[in-house]
Amino acid sequence: MDLSSLIGMLLGIIGLVTGLLVGGADILIYADLSSVFITIFGSFGALMITHPLQRILMMPQLIGIIYRGRKYEEEKLIAHLVSFSEKARRDGLLALEDDLDAIEDPFFRKGIQLVVDGTDPEIIKMILYTELNKIEERHEGNYLMFDDWGKTAPAFGMIGTLTGLIAMMRRMEDKLAIGRGMAQALLTTLYGAVLAYLFLIPFKRKLEMKSNAETLVKEILIEGVLSIQAGDNPRILEEKLYTFLPPSRRESLRDEMTKT
Amino acid sequence: MDLSSLIGMLLGIIGLVTGLLVGGADILIYADLSSVFITIFGSFGALMITHPLQRILMMPQLIGIIYRGRKYEEEKLIAHLVSFSEKARRDGLLALEDDLDAIEDPFFRKGIQLVVDGTDPEIIKMILYTELNKIEERHEGNYLMFDDWGKTAPAFGMIGTLTGLIAMMRRMEDKLAIGRGMAQALLTTLYGAVLAYLFLIPFKRKLEMKSNAETLVKEILIEGVLSIQAGDNPRILEEKLYTFLPPSRRESLRDEMTKT
Amino acid sequence: MDLSSLIGMLLGIIGLVTGLLVGGADILIYADLSSVFITIFGSFGALMITHPLQRILMMPQLIGIIYRGRKYEEEKLIAHLVSFSEKARRDGLLALEDDLDAIEDPFFRKGIQLVVDGTDPEIIKMILYTELNKIEERHEGNYLMFDDWGKTAPAFGMIGTLTGLIAMMRRMEDKLAIGRGMAQALLTTLYGAVLAYLFLIPFKRKLEMKSNAETLVKEILIEGVLSIQAGDNPRILEEKLYTFLPPSRRESLRDEMTKT
Amino acid sequence: MDLSSLIGMLLGIIGLVTGLLVGGADILIYADLSSVFITIFGSFGALMITHPLQRILMMPQLIGIIYRGRKYEEEKLIAHLVSFSEKARRDGLLALEDDLDAIEDPFFRKGIQLVVDGTDPEIIKMILYTELNKIEERHEGNYLMFDDWGKTAPAFGMIGTLTGLIAMMRRMEDKLAIGRGMAQALLTTLYGAVLAYLFLIPFKRKLEMKSNAETLVKEILIEGVLSIQAGDNPRILEEKLYTFLPPSRRESLRDEMTKT
Amino acid sequence: MDLSSLIGMLLGIIGLVTGLLVGGADILIYADLSSVFITIFGSFGALMITHPLQRILMMPQLIGIIYRGRKYEEEKLIAHLVSFSEKARRDGLLALEDDLDAIEDPFFRKGIQLVVDGTDPEIIKMILYTELNKIEERHEGNYLMFDDWGKTAPAFGMIGTLTGLIAMMRRMEDKLAIGRGMAQALLTTLYGAVLAYLFLIPFKRKLEMKSNAETLVKEILIEGVLSIQAGDNPRILEEKLYTFLPPSRRESLRDEMTKT
Repeated sequence: MDLSSLIGMLLGIIGLVTGLLVGGADILIYADLSSVFITIFGSFGALMITHPLQRILMMPQLIGIIYRGRKYEEEKLIAHLVSFSEKARRDGLLALEDDLDAIEDPFFRKGIQLVVDGTDPEIIKMILYTELNKIEERHEGNYLMFDDWGKTAPAFGMIGTLTGLIAMMRRMEDKLAIGRGMAQALLTTLYGAVLAYLFLIPFKRKLEMKSNAETLVKEILIEGVLSIQAGDNPRILEEKLYTFLPPSRRESLRDEMTKT
Repeated sequence: MDLSSLIGMLLGIIGLVTGLLVGGADILIYADLSSVFITIFGSFGALMITHPLQRILMMPQLIGIIYRGRKYEEEKLIAHLVSFSEKARRDGLLALEDDLDAIEDPFFRKGIQLVVDGTDPEIIKMILYTELNKIEERHEGNYLMFDDWGKTAPAFGMIGTLTGLIAMMRRMEDKLAIGRGMAQALLTTLYGAVLAYLFLIPFKRKLEMKSNAETLVKEILIEGVLSIQAGDNPRILEEKLYTFLPPSRRESLRDEMTKT
Repeated sequence: MDLSSLIGMLLGIIGLVTGLLVGGADILIYADLSSVFITIFGSFGALMITHPLQRILMMPQLIGIIYRGRKYEEEKLIAHLVSFSEKARRDGLLALEDDLDAIEDPFFRKGIQLVVDGTDPEIIKMILYTELNKIEERHEGNYLMFDDWGKTAPAFGMIGTLTGLIAMMRRMEDKLAIGRGMAQALLTTLYGAVLAYLFLIPFKRKLEMKSNAETLVKEILIEGVLSIQAGDNPRILEEKLYTFLPPSRRESLRDEMTKT
Repeated sequence: MDLSSLIGMLLGIIGLVTGLLVGGADILIYADLSSVFITIFGSFGALMITHPLQRILMMPQLIGIIYRGRKYEEEKLIAHLVSFSEKARRDGLLALEDDLDAIEDPFFRKGIQLVVDGTDPEIIKMILYTELNKIEERHEGNYLMFDDWGKTAPAFGMIGTLTGLIAMMRRMEDKLAIGRGMAQALLTTLYGAVLAYLFLIPFKRKLEMKSNAETLVKEILIEGVLSIQAGDNPRILEEKLYTFLPPSRRESLRDEMTKT
Repeated sequence: MDLSSLIGMLLGIIGLVTGLLVGGADILIYADLSSVFITIFGSFGALMITHPLQRILMMPQLIGIIYRGRKYEEEKLIAHLVSFSEKARRDGLLALEDDLDAIEDPFFRKGIQLVVDGTDPEIIKMILYTELNKIEERHEGNYLMFDDWGKTAPAFGMIGTLTGLIAMMRRMEDKLAIGRGMAQALLTTLYGAVLAYLFLIPFKRKLEMKSNAETLVKEILIEGVLSIQAGDNPRILEEKLYTFLPPSRRESLRDEMTKT
């Protein structure tokens, strides 16, 4: 579980609701079917014009990723790469073939497979970086979907408020009705703003960060695989990969290394 | 057909209309000729100042592209390139001449033609990348047209609202007339917002994505053509082009390869 | 004449005016001297703080460029370069000296002059690209002037509206006067918006595009001049320059070539 | 102490409060618990969705950095590097080992350690630049946290104002209550704006600048370490590092050099 | 004197004031001490949090630079460099030592000094470009200070308006007082807008342009110094530096050259 995201979401909702209760408002007045249609369905329609069906359908899965904890453990990965480097220097690159099936990450496995196959280093580099770039492009497509929706939702909120205001102003005889009409009209803007600022935009930023974290892991892997093939000194490799981590986590790496 | 774009457009319109009906508004009050003139014609005029006539006239065609399904099938293309690579290694580059007429994509045909003509690899690379860059520039010009209009339409909506408010405020004696005048004035802003956020901006984003998809195809082609000329191993070529696809589509590529 | 820009401007103005007339407004109520002073003179003053006098004085000339038709004909240029390439291969680079005076474009003439003088290719490349960069920088300075004004004009419109509102609110006894005061106040915002969105911002975008079109021509010229000096095959040169044009215009190039 | 930041914060608060007192307002009317919940807790919740818990918890520490004075003294650093350069040329690179423990900055010590170990220059360069890039990425993550909050706070202010307006408009019978309701509603927008513009955005900009200042120090260090390893002339090294400082501080560097 | 900036500032102020007088407003109603505190002192406080004291204190000096005329004369500089180039080819690089003291620009003098000292061309290039980059960074820090203030001032204007509106709405019994209260409240927004759009943002843009102009001069100098050291033909050097100037100023360069 990604605790921060979960607590954040709860805190945001609780903050809003408590604020309303403390201010003495009746929560029920904020529920409105018409606003759901205009703001949520309307902006979702605009989103579907832009993004392919396939990506739209991935949305629940992407939201799942936001609340799921990190699955990458760079420390373990570095320890793994260094042990491969030692083995390769001791027993030759072909000796790594036995460990291939034990590698879970398909990107890592592919890199070692290419090394074992004796592929040219330039081609390995090109294949792994192309793969990384394409992964980043797919991730970007995904989080920009939330960004697009986050920009469209307030616009549809405004559209709903405009339609509401126009309808209201056509019947301005009844003063009390004006207030109710205006309240109704502003509800769509409220829906758009909450949808965008409490959900969609934070979702986009979170996915962007998770994507950056994955890119870091892939960079460590590419650097490691190429060093293993080049037969670099495992100590130098460790030193290099070490720099990818924040100082606070280098301690835990040291522990990891002594375990292996 | 691009189902997502079509469903999205319908969903957006239905969401808006249903929201209005559920809210009890009369749809007819939103029809206004004056607002069409100011917002749509006005902003279209501003657009024509910027973009050449030729591109303006392409607009219906570009909207057609949005709703048309993908025509690129990367899997087939990669299979095609790999089979060319095998043939070239077996029978020499000149043997590809027989297949030239069967290639539909003019960019692909041009690449193979240059290879068959024995053109220098550096020149082929330069010609194909220049061609790709110019294609991207033309696409960008096209989708930025929708972007420009999408930014101008709300501005003209605001201009219309200002003119309406000013006219209304000059005759503030009649209280009911104020309401009607204001309703009228806000209609242009509504028109500008719907035009921009339900149509133009999603159109721009969709064309941008379709352009990126085409660029991907062209990158695969350039990579493939240069590999064929260099006489690379077809297996390595396959491995390279493979990385351009998302993992989910690599399976279908495997199937494609065994068919060929 | 640049038809699109002219029609666009007329359409924008007609759209606005017709919209007002259809809406039943009196056009004369939108004329206001005070708003001209605050919005137009005020924002023009802010513009003059930023840009040098020399560039400010070029404004009418730059607007002229917007409405003037294209003067570049890439097709002719490419045919010209190819014929030079043929001549240079047949009779030597020095033979081009006779044609120098017939070249109208000073950039083109300079390039050929440098070739005839036997200047080192690296230095020619450096001189022509520096020249191109400096041309682009000057163009950018010019169109950013319209951009700056386009951003400042709405701000001064808002300043005028604020001053108007403040003056009005100090004498709120007379209800009808409030309406008139508010109408007056909003006029400056209207002036700022029309100035920016119907004129300045489209002007900026148009000049930007014209600058890009000129850059394209210069790139063709540099590529051509360097190829001529290097003694490249005229067919290859033609093929290279060909790619700079959109497919629709390549036909007309073919015609041009057979004429020469 | 960073005097400018401290004075700035006080001046901002005093400016606001004095302005209110001079205008005759009662400061107490601006305190509101409901607005704290909606604007501050709500936007903080949205922030927590985006950023990892670990970074959120660093917030007080980061604010501490803003008000702490500069700890980097480039002049001393350059003098230090030049004296190392002289020692290395006189007594060999290994002689630097004795000074290792006296170096406080871990980045500096790591660089000299690598030199003493006889590591390949390319690898030293790669390790130090990777380290620098990762430091910059971590800093960016930190100051973008304040940026994200600075953008979200006004949005939650608007959300609070919308909820307040909607609640108020549902009971428009009492005219005086309208005023109070509206005043209440606007408080959240006020909270959001003060939080963002007086605290969060200046904090972000300040941290960004402190990060740039640290990058400068690290660049000087990398340049220095690589020059020492290459055995460059200490006078040339001094001249090089000299250019990193503004002219006004070069004098103090001269003084520093003569002291050493 | 920079005439354009001076005229612009006067025109902006006169435009505003005349517009108000023509509109029949009383200028005195716009003077308000409370607004000065909130908008000007408040936003200046926020600015001081961000920028170091030293840079804040440079503000009057930077405004002086805006109104001061250009001190760079590229034509003279190019003539100077070409004459040095001729001398160096005739009498050797060391002969330039006699002219060192006559060079006013410290950047130019430093370049020639390095040449006379026989420094390696790569190191000269590196030192001069580092110096240029650091100059640009300092300039950027300076003009971004005006940019930051220009963005913060309207925000504090809005904060002041919010506080004013809130205070006013708490005592809505007196209808005339409402108008006065609202007028008061809007004054801060007015102050913020005038400060930003008539002063700070144009100041930022002007300083940005002056910085670009200085960069151009420095680029000419670096290009010239390196050419002199390489012993390039003075005619080629002239031709190269020539391209840095707009065509309109090349004539005056020709005149300058014949004088020398």
